[in-house]
Amino acid sequence: MTRDQALTDAAQQLGYDFDGEIKAGGNYVPITREGNTVYLSGQVPRVGSTVVVTGRVGVDVDLARAQLAARICVMRALVLLQRSLGSLDAVKQVLRMNVFVQCADTFTQHSEVADAASDLIVQILGESGPHARTSVGVLSLPKGASVELDLTVAVTG
Amino acid sequence: MTRDQALTDAAQQLGYDFDGEIKAGGNYVPITREGNTVYLSGQVPRVGSTVVVTGRVGVDVDLARAQLAARICVMRALVLLQRSLGSLDAVKQVLRMNVFVQCADTFTQHSEVADAASDLIVQILGESGPHARTSVGVLSLPKGASVELDLTVAVTG
Amino acid sequence: MTRDQALTDAAQQLGYDFDGEIKAGGNYVPITREGNTVYLSGQVPRVGSTVVVTGRVGVDVDLARAQLAARICVMRALVLLQRSLGSLDAVKQVLRMNVFVQCADTFTQHSEVADAASDLIVQILGESGPHARTSVGVLSLPKGASVELDLTVAVTG
Repeated sequence: MTRDQALTDAAQQLGYDFDGEIKAGGNYVPITREGNTVYLSGQVPRVGSTVVVTGRVGVDVDLARAQLAARICVMRALVLLQRSLGSLDAVKQVLRMNVFVQCADTFTQHSEVADAASDLIVQILGESGPHARTSVGVLSLPKGASVELDLTVAVTG
Repeated sequence: MTRDQALTDAAQQLGYDFDGEIKAGGNYVPITREGNTVYLSGQVPRVGSTVVVTGRVGVDVDLARAQLAARICVMRALVLLQRSLGSLDAVKQVLRMNVFVQCADTFTQHSEVADAASDLIVQILGESGPHARTSVGVLSLPKGASVELDLTVAVTG
Repeated sequence: MTRDQALTDAAQQLGYDFDGEIKAGGNYVPITREGNTVYLSGQVPRVGSTVVVTGRVGVDVDLARAQLAARICVMRALVLLQRSLGSLDAVKQVLRMNVFVQCADTFTQHSEVADAASDLIVQILGESGPHARTSVGVLSLPKGASVELDLTVAVTG
């Protein structure tokens, strides 16, 4: 199975449609590039115009739902990459992922939330998927999102 | 109007003087570079030795003042870039901006704070200004600052 | 004294043993590389399987202990670099360090915590050590760690 097909399949499994526009809100852009390194803006779990998972993980939102949020963030990032590059085959290596979790002050399962994102990246990108990762728990996120993540990616061509 | 003139004009409009030394506090430096990629340290809204905007956005500090803080952070970053490169004409593309807002736990207007920074970058750098962006809400920042932001920038030559 | 010897000496001074495996927990990796730029995953103050410093800085953990945490994070990062590169002599320049402190909402000494990390990096890497830095205060960190930090590093060869 190609990576692009894996992306389509993952969208179907999640039950969300990522075919619409994914745009940044202001004087910033979803993706920048210098040489073979691509920088993606922070993604929240938005589908269309709705942020699907909002609230504080460990209080309003349980681990499973936070993991869903992380997966939706990844889908948005990979769809943006695919549109920018033409195909996910142009991804050489995911270099870094930063994961921000809006959580309770006693929350310690940041890695379990981020694992859902990492696993989906590897499921779709295979050997190009493993990445360096930093996960932290923050007080709040844009639009009340439960999770936000960004990627830095090496690409070919 | 040149970019360097636009930077000077922006300082006048803000009503602050950025002519003094902008130094990092310890065994770190304001700017590092590898190839054509430049990394800037996190900037707080300090002018001279005073952090101009401190406190929690949404509690002690309103949106307009948080946006002022974001603009001062940008001014510091661009002045540092200008001094390092000789001129802002050597900026090829702002690659990434990370924006950290010290805010209330119910705060959701991170994007509105960050927009003030993004808009000023584009005002000064024109087509080299649009960037990938990540904005999060944090519990606290150095010196009680209301906003901190850092940049990664592609440069020429 | 070589950098590699300086690393060994620093481990002895801290009184911790970093000889064991330092592994990432999931579908992510400790280090990625694109060209001459290396990205390290966020490090918590873990030695072996124990996170040595946990809790909220300014409440449960004092500044000295937070600085110890920062030093242990640096040791882990530099040991990972050494193992990946063969020797720390292959470090050209530390480009960026992000420091996340789990702290009280009134905490303002982020720079003092991060300075402990910056100082140790410069102690071991000499003129290749000074780096751009961003320090923020977060609500929580993985495994309850008091400090987490990551590095981006330029390498030779």
